[in-house]
Amino acid sequence: MRMITLDEVVSLLKENDCFKLLTHSYPDGDTLGGAFALAYALRKLGKKANVAVNGAVPSKFRYLVKNYTEQDFVPAYIVSVDVAAMSLLGDSVMEGVDKIDLCIDHHRTNSVAAEHVYVDGDAAAASETVWQIIGMLGVEPDEDIAGCIYTGISTDTGCFCYTNTTPRTHRIAAEVIPYCDWQSINYINFVVKTRAKIRMERMIYDTMEFYAGGKCAVVYTTLAMQMALGAGDDEMEGLANIPRQVEGVQMGITMREKEGGVFKISVRTNDGINASEFCKQFGGGGHPAASGCSIEGDLGTVKKMLVDAAEAFL
Amino acid sequence: MRMITLDEVVSLLKENDCFKLLTHSYPDGDTLGGAFALAYALRKLGKKANVAVNGAVPSKFRYLVKNYTEQDFVPAYIVSVDVAAMSLLGDSVMEGVDKIDLCIDHHRTNSVAAEHVYVDGDAAAASETVWQIIGMLGVEPDEDIAGCIYTGISTDTGCFCYTNTTPRTHRIAAEVIPYCDWQSINYINFVVKTRAKIRMERMIYDTMEFYAGGKCAVVYTTLAMQMALGAGDDEMEGLANIPRQVEGVQMGITMREKEGGVFKISVRTNDGINASEFCKQFGGGGHPAASGCSIEGDLGTVKKMLVDAAEAFL
Repeated sequence: MRMITLDEVVSLLKENDCFKLLTHSYPDGDTLGGAFALAYALRKLGKKANVAVNGAVPSKFRYLVKNYTEQDFVPAYIVSVDVAAMSLLGDSVMEGVDKIDLCIDHHRTNSVAAEHVYVDGDAAAASETVWQIIGMLGVEPDEDIAGCIYTGISTDTGCFCYTNTTPRTHRIAAEVIPYCDWQSINYINFVVKTRAKIRMERMIYDTMEFYAGGKCAVVYTTLAMQMALGAGDDEMEGLANIPRQVEGVQMGITMREKEGGVFKISVRTNDGINASEFCKQFGGGGHPAASGCSIEGDLGTVKKMLVDAAEAFL
Repeated sequence: MRMITLDEVVSLLKENDCFKLLTHSYPDGDTLGGAFALAYALRKLGKKANVAVNGAVPSKFRYLVKNYTEQDFVPAYIVSVDVAAMSLLGDSVMEGVDKIDLCIDHHRTNSVAAEHVYVDGDAAAASETVWQIIGMLGVEPDEDIAGCIYTGISTDTGCFCYTNTTPRTHRIAAEVIPYCDWQSINYINFVVKTRAKIRMERMIYDTMEFYAGGKCAVVYTTLAMQMALGAGDDEMEGLANIPRQVEGVQMGITMREKEGGVFKISVRTNDGINASEFCKQFGGGGHPAASGCSIEGDLGTVKKMLVDAAEAFL
């Protein structure tokens, strides 16, 4: 395994053919946007390239593949895009893959076992790096490529709101939006809410309780609530951001009941409070401002455990 | 009154001194950001410049003026920033103003009676134009100027999400964020919510009704609701975006009761529905996707007028 430069990445892509591009499980806008953008670009160079997705492309991201059809060839060069660890590569994605030739990522914690690795920890999204690569490959952008890149950088930055956004992120957005229907992409990813999602958000607000003198806000969803509202996974998305948005809250805790008497806990923090440290106490972890863990037990017991820990922690 | 070029705007600003910069009523991030950025820039050129705000600067925008102190001089040159119509200039702002020398705006419907007018309908925010002007004036950006410009363009574009965003908007963001604490600005404008605001949002959802086969959603707030929740103007901000977020909604109408039996109407549209055209019917206007008007009458009457018009319009 060797860390390489962006020039070397471009050389490797130019020298090789018959690419299989790997995306991570529970695929998001960046792993899909980056991988499909790279596939479209390699195909424009006359090369063969397919993208391997674990399961189907989520319905909200179907627009990324409207002009994509699987090509028939034996993969010869394997590239992972936005994959931080081997454990995030689903079995279906790894089918027939014995080694990863190139890893393109932006997670500083990247631990993928690949022959060549390029990780730009300053990139808000892996799609930022893919856009640089596409330019260095001399490929002219088109609607497919631009739409994929815009999706990757906009979803990974919460539409240029999160602190990982940089001047380069905005410059790339300025370069790609003339080529794609970014308005529709924003509508799909940042605007539209189903009525079920709105009902779920309102119910979530009804559960909100404050602790530690208002520095901790706790909300929860139960299977019964989800059932009553006919809310699927799409409706549950983004709920973890609600409690930390409240004025004065430094730690927002979202408890989501899953099958089997387990609560999936999401912790979001402000003001430099370390969510990862907090979740470690319960065998979890993640990023300093966004972490999680799982706790078995009934609602009251699990909530009390979390609240007691939060009041001790803050 | 004469439409002039950006070069002429810059010349006029260079030739004159003792500026009074006018902002519109219910000041938002763009009128404040644009006006204060221009004031800071003119002061860096050794000129005198004050900003006139109708009432106090809203608490959430206090960071724009942390290094601003009123200067003592007799105004000699009056400039309006982001003001679309004379009716949007409050009495306190117009105190001692007999004529407006220069109008800088981005509303295509601009009707301000000024000697010289510069309207860039392609600018997502008046602050985009102000940033161009500051560059042409040869003023080096600093944290105050950059923070004001970032505030103007980010708030008028919903953090680069709305359809008025352009490549230039992103390029300007790339230019200003190295100079200012844009992360804190985003937290203030796009993340944090007061408990009163959350209560108000929930109450707003309770008022939501659908018309035109679900293509039109209408919500309202009354003075009584505002009083009951202890919600100030800060809490009322952003409510206009709630109805158009619902799946299938093309036109979201927000009715806000003001003193004196008047409702301030905000219209937000998707799918290219022209909100400005719709609001013209009621003597209002604005942008294609975000417009407003004022209608006198009681809740039921005003709502029926709007709903009938919407069903005919959609």
